[in-house]
Amino acid sequence: MTAAFDVAALAERIAGGEPRALARGISHVENEIDGYEPLLDALHERLGRARRIGITGPPGAGKSTLTAGLARGYLEAGLTVGIVAVDPTSPFTGGALLGDRIRMVDLATEPGVFIRSMASRGSLGGLATATREAADLMDAAGYDRVILETLGVGQSELDIAASADTTAVVLVPESGDGIQAMKAGLMEVADLFVVNKADRPGADRLGREIRVMMAIREGNALKEIVSHHGAKIDRPAEVESEGFRTPVLQTVASTGQGVAELSAALDEHFKWLESSGELEPRRAERRIRRARDVLARLAEGSARKLWDARRDEVAGRLAGNDASPYAIARELFDDWVAGLRG
Amino acid sequence: MTAAFDVAALAERIAGGEPRALARGISHVENEIDGYEPLLDALHERLGRARRIGITGPPGAGKSTLTAGLARGYLEAGLTVGIVAVDPTSPFTGGALLGDRIRMVDLATEPGVFIRSMASRGSLGGLATATREAADLMDAAGYDRVILETLGVGQSELDIAASADTTAVVLVPESGDGIQAMKAGLMEVADLFVVNKADRPGADRLGREIRVMMAIREGNALKEIVSHHGAKIDRPAEVESEGFRTPVLQTVASTGQGVAELSAALDEHFKWLESSGELEPRRAERRIRRARDVLARLAEGSARKLWDARRDEVAGRLAGNDASPYAIARELFDDWVAGLRG
Repeated sequence: MTAAFDVAALAERIAGGEPRALARGISHVENEIDGYEPLLDALHERLGRARRIGITGPPGAGKSTLTAGLARGYLEAGLTVGIVAVDPTSPFTGGALLGDRIRMVDLATEPGVFIRSMASRGSLGGLATATREAADLMDAAGYDRVILETLGVGQSELDIAASADTTAVVLVPESGDGIQAMKAGLMEVADLFVVNKADRPGADRLGREIRVMMAIREGNALKEIVSHHGAKIDRPAEVESEGFRTPVLQTVASTGQGVAELSAALDEHFKWLESSGELEPRRAERRIRRARDVLARLAEGSARKLWDARRDEVAGRLAGNDASPYAIARELFDDWVAGLRG
Repeated sequence: MTAAFDVAALAERIAGGEPRALARGISHVENEIDGYEPLLDALHERLGRARRIGITGPPGAGKSTLTAGLARGYLEAGLTVGIVAVDPTSPFTGGALLGDRIRMVDLATEPGVFIRSMASRGSLGGLATATREAADLMDAAGYDRVILETLGVGQSELDIAASADTTAVVLVPESGDGIQAMKAGLMEVADLFVVNKADRPGADRLGREIRVMMAIREGNALKEIVSHHGAKIDRPAEVESEGFRTPVLQTVASTGQGVAELSAALDEHFKWLESSGELEPRRAERRIRRARDVLARLAEGSARKLWDARRDEVAGRLAGNDASPYAIARELFDDWVAGLRG
C-alpha cells in the first residue's frame, strides 16, 4: 500500500508536538487516507505516556462542562490536555446551546489544549476505532492527559469510554437515569461515578442507588444496605484489598464545585492502576483488541473495494429483486476470496 | 458452509407463522448460527408484506409506551404486530421501571403480538444488521406491522430506525432535547415527529422548534417563520407536491391521547410512499445496503476465524509490546491471503 503522504515526516512532526501535524494526522485516520495505519504503527512506540480518561453518560448530563473543568484544572497544574469528543450532543462537536459552545471554544484557544471532535464514518464500528486512534495520536504528541468524551448509550460509544485507563460515568438527578443507566451497560465500564448537577433534588438518592447497585454487583449487597442505614460494619481487610472501590462523587460542573475532587479521584484511580499492577494488563488488552479490530478493518476494507467496484452492477440486480442480498453478498465474497487467491 | 439446523424446515415453519419457529430463527440470526444466512435467503421472497415502522428518540421519551399503544390499536383493528426492541432502556428489553415493564409483559401475552428484544453482539455493527434481519423474519412470518423501537443516539441505532418504511422520532418537552436532538442526526431520519408527554409545559414550544428546524432544512425558513407569526402565506402548489410534509404530532402515551392520530399519520405516510412511487426505491436501497453489510460481515467473519486461531500466539507478542497492533494485524492479514493462495 502506498501512502498518500510522507508518513515518516508527519510522524516526526506529531512526535515533536506540532498541533497542525496532529490535526492532519487525525484527519488522515478519520478519513482512512492511505498511510494512516503505517503512521499509527510508526508512532506506536511513543504511546503510554498520557493518562487516558473516559467521560461518558446520557445526553444532557454535563459531560462537556465537566471535561472543560477538568481540562482547566490540568492547565493550571501545568499539564497539557487532549480532548476527543464523540458525543453528537456535545458542545465540542457542535451540539448543545450557544452559551455552552462559546465556553468550549474559549477553552480550545488555550495553549496546551487540543480539542478534536469525531464525526461518524461510513463503516460500521469505524468511529470507535478511529476515536481511539485519535487518542493515540494525542498521546504520541505528548499530551499529558487525553480525555475521551462519549455519549454512554450505544455499544460502540461505551466501547470507546471503556478503552480509557479510567472511565468516569456521569449521571444527573433528574430524568430517572439512575436505574435505567445501570441497565444500559454504564455500570460495567465505570471506574468512578459522578452525580453532576448535584445541587438539584434527588442527587443524594441517586448516589445511594448507585452505591446499592454497585454493592449488589460486588456481592456485598446486604452489608452495603445495612451500612447505608447507619450501622457500622467492619469489613474484612481482604475485601478492601480486592480492588479499587468505585467512588461516587458529586459535582456541579457549571460552578466548578467538586471538579477538583473529581480530578483527585481520577489521579487516585490511576495510582491504584499502577500500584496494583493493573495498568499494564489493561493496556495490553487494549493493544490486543486493537489488533483484532484492525485485522477486521483490513478484511472489511478489502471487501469494500470489491463492493465499490461492482456496486452499480449488483445494485441493478438488487433493485430488480432478482436475487436476495444474501445470494449477492455470497457471490461477491466468493469472488473476493478468488481475487485474493490471485 | 454446513448449517447447524434444517434450514428449509425452519423456513417453512416461519413462513407458516409459528411463533416458536420465529423465535428460534431470530436466535439463530442473533447468534450467527451456521445456516442463518441461508435461512434469510430462503425467506427473502416472502418479504415486503409488512409495513415497517421505526420508533426512535432519546432515553425516557416514552417510546415503548407509544409502541405498546400503537400495537394495541393494530390488534383492535385485527392486525398482527411484531416488535423488535433494541433500546437498552426499554421495558421490552429489561430496562425501565417495574410498572412499565409489567404493562409490556401484558402486551406480550396477547395473541397476534410477537415481541423480541435484541442484545448487543460481539462484532461492532453486528447488532444493527441482526435487528433488521429479525424484522425480516417477522415480515416473513406474516406480521402485518413490524415496529422497530430503538434508542436514537448512536449511529448504528439511528441506522436501524432509518431502515423502516416510516420512522417516527419521539421527543419530550423537558430535558431540552429539542435542538440537541436535531443535531444528533434524528432530523435526518424522521418521517414524522411526535412530541410525547404533551401535557407537560413546553410541548408547544418544542413543536414550534421542530417545525422551524424542518423548515430551515427544507429551505423554506422565512415562509415558515412568518406563518408561525400568524401571517397566511400562499404556498405554490409545486412546493406542496415535492414530498411528504413531515407532521409534528402531540401525544400523551401514558393515557393513550393522540395515539390513534399517530397511527393514522403513519398510515398516511405509508400511503404517500405507495402513491408517490417512493416505497419501492426505499426498499431497493435497503436491499442494496443489506448486501453491502452482509459482504462486510462475511469478510469480517473470515478475519475473525483467523484471529481466533492465532489469538494466543499474537496476544503474547502484543502483551510484551514486541510489535504494534498494526504490524500484527497486517501480518495476520498477509498470512491469511498467502494461505488462500497456497
